[in-house]
Amino acid sequence: MIPPPLIDSESLLADLDALARIGRDPDGALNRIAYSPTDQAGRAWVAEQMRALGLRVHADAAGNTIGRYPGSADLPPIALGSHSDTVPNGGSYDGALGVVAALACVRALHTAGVRLRHPMEIINFAAEEATMAGGTTGSQAMAGLFDPAIFDRAAWDGRPVREHLLAAGLDPASFATAQRPPGALAAYLELHIEQGDVLTTAGVPIGIVEGFVGIRRYAVTFAGYANHAGTTPMHRRQDALVAAAPLITFVRDLAVAHGIVGTIGTLTVHPGAPNVIPGLVDLIVETRGLDTPVLDRVEVALAEQVHSIGARIATVVSKPPVQADPAVVGALARACEALGLGYMRMPSGAGHDAMCMASLCPQAMIFVPSQSGVSHSPDEYTTPEDCVHGARVLLAGLLQLEELL
Amino acid sequence: MIPPPLIDSESLLADLDALARIGRDPDGALNRIAYSPTDQAGRAWVAEQMRALGLRVHADAAGNTIGRYPGSADLPPIALGSHSDTVPNGGSYDGALGVVAALACVRALHTAGVRLRHPMEIINFAAEEATMAGGTTGSQAMAGLFDPAIFDRAAWDGRPVREHLLAAGLDPASFATAQRPPGALAAYLELHIEQGDVLTTAGVPIGIVEGFVGIRRYAVTFAGYANHAGTTPMHRRQDALVAAAPLITFVRDLAVAHGIVGTIGTLTVHPGAPNVIPGLVDLIVETRGLDTPVLDRVEVALAEQVHSIGARIATVVSKPPVQADPAVVGALARACEALGLGYMRMPSGAGHDAMCMASLCPQAMIFVPSQSGVSHSPDEYTTPEDCVHGARVLLAGLLQLEELL
Repeated sequence: MIPPPLIDSESLLADLDALARIGRDPDGALNRIAYSPTDQAGRAWVAEQMRALGLRVHADAAGNTIGRYPGSADLPPIALGSHSDTVPNGGSYDGALGVVAALACVRALHTAGVRLRHPMEIINFAAEEATMAGGTTGSQAMAGLFDPAIFDRAAWDGRPVREHLLAAGLDPASFATAQRPPGALAAYLELHIEQGDVLTTAGVPIGIVEGFVGIRRYAVTFAGYANHAGTTPMHRRQDALVAAAPLITFVRDLAVAHGIVGTIGTLTVHPGAPNVIPGLVDLIVETRGLDTPVLDRVEVALAEQVHSIGARIATVVSKPPVQADPAVVGALARACEALGLGYMRMPSGAGHDAMCMASLCPQAMIFVPSQSGVSHSPDEYTTPEDCVHGARVLLAGLLQLEELL
Repeated sequence: MIPPPLIDSESLLADLDALARIGRDPDGALNRIAYSPTDQAGRAWVAEQMRALGLRVHADAAGNTIGRYPGSADLPPIALGSHSDTVPNGGSYDGALGVVAALACVRALHTAGVRLRHPMEIINFAAEEATMAGGTTGSQAMAGLFDPAIFDRAAWDGRPVREHLLAAGLDPASFATAQRPPGALAAYLELHIEQGDVLTTAGVPIGIVEGFVGIRRYAVTFAGYANHAGTTPMHRRQDALVAAAPLITFVRDLAVAHGIVGTIGTLTVHPGAPNVIPGLVDLIVETRGLDTPVLDRVEVALAEQVHSIGARIATVVSKPPVQADPAVVGALARACEALGLGYMRMPSGAGHDAMCMASLCPQAMIFVPSQSGVSHSPDEYTTPEDCVHGARVLLAGLLQLEELL
């Protein structure tokens, strides 16, 4: 195997810093909202860095920026990517780190004069954040997972997505042509900040993402009888909130027992007056986990519990898990071992471009620690050391794949 | 003691029926909202019945209608009363029963040619229902408990109370002149439907109200940490809803253990999204009971529990209990015994005009069963037999007071 050339950590951190100045408000918040002028300025800066490294750059119909670095053989490219758009009032690492780390990998190969057999691509995906009536818009378009219904939905600012696209010079009618055929890419790797605090808490510098959790949401309704809270004795009440209370701890315990996450994030009391006994409680239970059989077992236990207390349950969301490619996960693990960096396999609790790319080619992701688990905030932070570690694993993983594929 | 003349049950029930036709919608709901044209029509009908029985009728500055029946001695009057206004979409018994029963008492005395030493008053209070930015507006004015701040508050329909008063020909500036001096009345008795199902459940026809419960409300706040429900492992969460859940059953158990009522009628989860761990939960605990020391003990136990789980508690309402006059309660008990009617002493969990009148003179109330405890609804119902029983106790109680005072 080719020994990985050294990542130029100074250039990497300077790039991260330069990108973080584009769209920065005086108060430090980053606003490179998808398709906005600052997003386009950020994308233009990234494209310029790609060209400086000898990549051939083009934008597709969805606004994704793709830079191609030639290989020595007629093979499909290995792609490295992430996104440079941000949430409103975002931070400097979410998405940006993966993009500048991809640049750093090509720079390292370029500087060392290493030419791989595989061509390489750096993909700066469009609209990864959920600002355009959803998220991962660009990677969905590339992977053929795109739903044109979003054009008419409200973006983060209430205006239809279509308007944002047109303002950015994109044609909704040709958006779907961004789709690439199966086999177009040999593999996809993405470095991203964790956005949780699993790595920080465990003191481990690298997470290898084994998959994206499946998400299920259940609407649970407790019907009681709304009555006067002054005139109705305790033993004559049908209080929907008293009935619902045990389910809150039940969901927590159920999730812990099955090694998944389970959350009741919304709960509404009707009619909701201090002097009226709750007549109805609506809540949403969300479960997330990597293994469908585990999510199924939790669903059965939850439904049994809900029925046993006379409440109703309906499934409102059921998104299956997306597994990472075991061979690519293995390549990243070997890369960490070769570099002497500690790592742990972990699920991703959030969606990423790599999740969409799984429909197109083998993929896996690298996570680096997020301080205090904070993201989507000007306070998100990853240490320079962790950023460089992530880029080194990205490059070493790429070379493992060059060998493997 | 004068043996009570017979209540003319046919006239009583016919009056109840006649009043129930004023302000009735085609779907059966009653709308005699305070100061509205239908309320005024109802009041005019009541005044007409008073005059037909020989009462001298006037309206005070708050819109209360007062009918005076002469006595043989120079004594302050004994008053019987209730209210003929309704909530929006109300029923035929709440308030109306007490008014027509007072008419029935005077009719019985009048027909039998019985003249008491005490003059009598029938008071049809204005705006007892909480439509005018509160409740018991008319009796508060009469008892000097009135807060002029309500004039500028929003009534049930969003318009300021002042507009409703002006439209009904009342002058907010002279509203306070409705206040009557101490000693103006010898006693006040009121018959009302229970609006709960204690009597129905116990199979007892008469409740004698020993007092109006004190009401305390506490705002309790659980602070957690709002975080991504996908990326935050269970053991790293500070979920405000999971923290709040045990308090819901705690409040129920605490109320049961102390023989009072305790309710959490509002609970709000922030930020309230299915994929965000609750970062903050606000709720209101309400306790109601007749005994201040019991309410105090409950408050101490509640505060200890809240503090033990790291939450915050603040008292937002503290209305002391209002006790009925023991002599008047005793007179009603003797009346029931003389009539051979079963009765139970009980608290009133809701406010009534009698609660305000307690500031002005000795008072007590008579409750009759509400079918299924339903009130403030077109479905409220009290059997004709129970209506007549109530009127008989009202008259017999009046005669006990005539003797006693």
